[in-house]
Amino acid sequence: MPPLTIAQELAAKQREISVAEFFERNRQILGFDNPSRALLTTVKEAVDNSLDAAEEARILPEIRVEIAKDDNDRLRVTVDDNGPGILRREIPNVFARLLYGSRFHAHRQARGQQGIGISAAVLYAALTTARPATITSKVAEEEGAHRLDLLIDVHKNAPTVVREEVLLWDRPHGTRVELTLKARYVRGRQSPLEYLRGTAIVNPHARIVFVEPDGTRITFERATEELPPVPKETLPHPYGLELGEFAGLLSQSRRPSVLEMLTRDLACVSVRAARAALEASGTPPTTPPKAIAGPAVERLLAALQADSLPSPSADCLSPIGPVLIKRGLRNVLGEIRPEFFAPPVSRPPRVRAGFPFVVEVGLVYGGGLPVDQPIQLLRFANRVPLLFQQGACAITNAVAQIDWRRYGLDQKGGSGLPVGPALLLVHIASTKIPFTSEAKEAIAEDPEIDREVTLALQAAARHLKTHLSRKSRRAFASEKFEIIQRILPQLAEKTSRLVGKPVPDLTPVITRIMDVVTVELTGPSDAAPGQGRIEVTNYTPRARPLELFLELPPATFPQLTFSPAPTGTDPDLGRAWWTLDRLPPNGRTAIAIAAAKPAEIDPGEFDLYVAGVDESHLLGADPLPGDWDVRLPRAIVEAAEAAAEPPKTDAGEEEVDYDAAEASARVADDD
Amino acid sequence: MPPLTIAQELAAKQREISVAEFFERNRQILGFDNPSRALLTTVKEAVDNSLDAAEEARILPEIRVEIAKDDNDRLRVTVDDNGPGILRREIPNVFARLLYGSRFHAHRQARGQQGIGISAAVLYAALTTARPATITSKVAEEEGAHRLDLLIDVHKNAPTVVREEVLLWDRPHGTRVELTLKARYVRGRQSPLEYLRGTAIVNPHARIVFVEPDGTRITFERATEELPPVPKETLPHPYGLELGEFAGLLSQSRRPSVLEMLTRDLACVSVRAARAALEASGTPPTTPPKAIAGPAVERLLAALQADSLPSPSADCLSPIGPVLIKRGLRNVLGEIRPEFFAPPVSRPPRVRAGFPFVVEVGLVYGGGLPVDQPIQLLRFANRVPLLFQQGACAITNAVAQIDWRRYGLDQKGGSGLPVGPALLLVHIASTKIPFTSEAKEAIAEDPEIDREVTLALQAAARHLKTHLSRKSRRAFASEKFEIIQRILPQLAEKTSRLVGKPVPDLTPVITRIMDVVTVELTGPSDAAPGQGRIEVTNYTPRARPLELFLELPPATFPQLTFSPAPTGTDPDLGRAWWTLDRLPPNGRTAIAIAAAKPAEIDPGEFDLYVAGVDESHLLGADPLPGDWDVRLPRAIVEAAEAAAEPPKTDAGEEEVDYDAAEASARVADDD
Repeated sequence: MPPLTIAQELAAKQREISVAEFFERNRQILGFDNPSRALLTTVKEAVDNSLDAAEEARILPEIRVEIAKDDNDRLRVTVDDNGPGILRREIPNVFARLLYGSRFHAHRQARGQQGIGISAAVLYAALTTARPATITSKVAEEEGAHRLDLLIDVHKNAPTVVREEVLLWDRPHGTRVELTLKARYVRGRQSPLEYLRGTAIVNPHARIVFVEPDGTRITFERATEELPPVPKETLPHPYGLELGEFAGLLSQSRRPSVLEMLTRDLACVSVRAARAALEASGTPPTTPPKAIAGPAVERLLAALQADSLPSPSADCLSPIGPVLIKRGLRNVLGEIRPEFFAPPVSRPPRVRAGFPFVVEVGLVYGGGLPVDQPIQLLRFANRVPLLFQQGACAITNAVAQIDWRRYGLDQKGGSGLPVGPALLLVHIASTKIPFTSEAKEAIAEDPEIDREVTLALQAAARHLKTHLSRKSRRAFASEKFEIIQRILPQLAEKTSRLVGKPVPDLTPVITRIMDVVTVELTGPSDAAPGQGRIEVTNYTPRARPLELFLELPPATFPQLTFSPAPTGTDPDLGRAWWTLDRLPPNGRTAIAIAAAKPAEIDPGEFDLYVAGVDESHLLGADPLPGDWDVRLPRAIVEAAEAAAEPPKTDAGEEEVDYDAAEASARVADDD
Repeated sequence: MPPLTIAQELAAKQREISVAEFFERNRQILGFDNPSRALLTTVKEAVDNSLDAAEEARILPEIRVEIAKDDNDRLRVTVDDNGPGILRREIPNVFARLLYGSRFHAHRQARGQQGIGISAAVLYAALTTARPATITSKVAEEEGAHRLDLLIDVHKNAPTVVREEVLLWDRPHGTRVELTLKARYVRGRQSPLEYLRGTAIVNPHARIVFVEPDGTRITFERATEELPPVPKETLPHPYGLELGEFAGLLSQSRRPSVLEMLTRDLACVSVRAARAALEASGTPPTTPPKAIAGPAVERLLAALQADSLPSPSADCLSPIGPVLIKRGLRNVLGEIRPEFFAPPVSRPPRVRAGFPFVVEVGLVYGGGLPVDQPIQLLRFANRVPLLFQQGACAITNAVAQIDWRRYGLDQKGGSGLPVGPALLLVHIASTKIPFTSEAKEAIAEDPEIDREVTLALQAAARHLKTHLSRKSRRAFASEKFEIIQRILPQLAEKTSRLVGKPVPDLTPVITRIMDVVTVELTGPSDAAPGQGRIEVTNYTPRARPLELFLELPPATFPQLTFSPAPTGTDPDLGRAWWTLDRLPPNGRTAIAIAAAKPAEIDPGEFDLYVAGVDESHLLGADPLPGDWDVRLPRAIVEAAEAAAEPPKTDAGEEEVDYDAAEASARVADDD
């Protein structure tokens, strides 16, 4: 035999590579770089699967994660769920075969979309400890549970069942995953605990119990008993179709006519739009889809994409929603007690490459958050916390591109992560998240995503700015108030004594300097659980008719009683309002609130509005927004009109030197 | 039939996912996020393959890349190489099947290791334009070339040959890849041009021609005719083996005894080490490898890993080497003409998870590099430029962690990319690079890699610091020189006129103030190409015997002639030296250099050393390093000894007021 030529030699080395071999060798791509990250990734893949399965089966998720010491540098991870369970015949492939799953081909929002995650954990466990994974699963319709010990045949990317038994299990349905792996347990920013905390924030319907290797047990209780709505499956939208994909859809279609294929197998294509595109591209509507090929495919897709089709429906998405974002953050932040929860921002759904997505942003400020460090950024994709690769993520990039100095946070040079006592939550929900790698830790740069995240962040930042300027206004007002309360009476008394007259009533002077209506919500307290109180004080120099408005989560509304009773309510929207008696200068009135459960009175969830006084003379409440469709009493309307004119001077008889204080107050008010 | 239960419903959706489907949907992971990045990735994958194949076949690579306009938003990419060609039977799998290749299973340094790259480009092209890839390839042993039009069957991850012909081709061997894809051509930091420029820097043995869409032709000529040595294949090193891998090696081994398996199938395990480990773990050396299982495997691996085995040999690696790093940078930087090329740093090979790796760093400073911007960081892995994901890369992280202020660059807060007119090249060569994703754009964090990169960067940074302090010393000396040359004669003349005496000889005074020996290398210039000159001037107050040493690339040495002739030479090391005539104060001598080719005289490649004067009295050259094994003339040795004592004052007869100038000079010298 002649010696091999170079080309033959090179050809002899060519071989197929199994996807399991590939990922075994490149395990850093899947998030198994080192023992501590491998542990986190394992917990994450198991819990994400449990949440997906429970939600699909409409079960309120109940998950238990235990990390226990094994040998040396090994830990044993056990994740238990109350999900629907997995049929015996599917267990080996689901847990011991990469690129196998139920969610890849569906256009629907899910945590797992790749069919890689949990099998990768099984692969890593076997690689580092040579021990099989133990899977126990029970479905409701069978008596017994199946327990399988599984390994992956790396060269074939196929499961090997090492051992198997059927057993009785004390639960109606559910799955347990047990893995022993080379791992290191840490707490901190990139840890299983942090991942579970983040998961609890954006999945307030899940109950999660976590047992650490030292036996410490941490429970994240549910903040809601309501399951998120099931995200629906959607069809591909023409805007996101590449030519090759469209050609594939046509050639594999079983529809009798292209018209039917376009209207039934694509999203948002009406019969009208389909006919228009077919006409524009010169294709008869009755042509069988398979018969369209070559340039005709291209013309047809171009015509569809040139039309202005509706955006894909957002009912395939499951955003968290403002109420639950706020509640989730509050639930988990606990001890930190931030002073301000910005109203969470939910952007309308958009389309990126044919896939709908939604951006949500939550922002909290102050309280126990550190003042001199970069803000905390919590990134989430499809309700999963992203803990690694922050620097490579489109979310981080969007945050860093905003000039936060304009919104009241420190930031070197106007870019990068701002510094201050703030925490930002950014959630992107989509039927397809463009991750930078299979480890699903960072979102790839994309102009559409960047734009939506930026808009949402700016909206949240504007709330922060308003809060900070109100806070400084309030601080200034209370400083002014204190000065007035302390100095004016002294001055008055001194002056009166000098001239030998009785001390005059200072109300007109004080109100003229203060010139503000204050609204304060207090309670509940330990002394008075379930009791709240709204106090309105008229520190202006004129008697005022006022209308007070309260808005709170509609679910909370029926739990509350008010005294005096509201003038009107709209329980569906969670709204109540009161026409207050005309308040004289220095006059005060209060509304008492009583709740069935103490927890229902949560000042962070109560929004207060006032009509009858303009924003610059209002503290502790906002002017009534334009979208409240209520009829205001005539007195209020008149008062609002009169507010444009300056009040008539009815102080002035007293010669008290308050000009300096007032002047400086005026200047500050103009800021 | 009863309705499906939930578990059955979920099970019915479970499906296998082909790796081609997976990457078609997640193309951002492979670097096909958007039309401009997709273009760069396509060029990169094709060129990397061409370089790998040419080098394996020991052919000096000659590559032509053309990007031409096609329809609308489409470009046609053609990459031609002079490689060995590919056998007809391998062409479909190599270009139209993901996870197929020759380099994945070999423990050897290569650009492509995954078997994904070029097939991903073919997949993307078909997806966006529905057009097949055209591959033409000819091997030396066949008359004709094969031309195939290929598509990928996405559901099967298998090639489809659409068209095929055999043709005559006007070259002995080589491959052409032609692809039409949705793409956008840009220049700038993340562009095909920048990728090819970077490739030329670290592959100075390749000739690359690039034709842009507007017809502009850019050629990167070779900077060397020498191919890098072939990286050898290596065996797995015990330090990097996971238990699961080791168990696999044992169970699949065909060796008769475990002793033989350990010493033949693993790297760096001697018979002694193998016997010791077998004894420590209680396994008889004659046991067949397959017979070892369970805890015995674990004990054996632990025993091997506990031994101090030698590091894997570096001959499986192909670092660029200091000479070619410098030449590559010089070749490509061209117009920028940096003022300083730090001696490139090559760290000794290290092991990470059983894979050897080497870190190299080049640093240039000044010239046309921008002063007020972050430094340019050129990252390379196995001679491939990394252009994306800079923020997620271990190299960037290592650069950002160094406090560059200590080495003379600006840096906010002592971390992050420093600011200044510098360019850093960092190259990591390894049999396995831990990339963060299949796009191979960033290296994952790893403590070993981080440590090596940091050490290499620090070494380069120290060179920079020395350069900058020398530069400021030189600037100070020339300022001093100017002042002395201008003011002293004026003073002397004035004073002489006043006292009516002749102007004295100022040499003793001037040399006492200057107190330095200067060495200057000039040329070649346009007026005198191929001519260089070394000038030595003794601005010290005492006559000096001096020895001058020159070191340059050994390859250049034979091309040069010197006048006067050197006292001695060592051509193998590229060294020559001269015993200079005793130079009186203010005395000067010169050595003329003539080169066969003008380009051979490159001041950046000449290192000058002087013996006979200590470092603080030397400008433009360094003191002779300790590793030069030359015998110095006795006069030089004595002079060096005498240098410790201060020179006797032999000026002083003249009453010239130079104290102020001298005092300030002295102070500065002490710095």
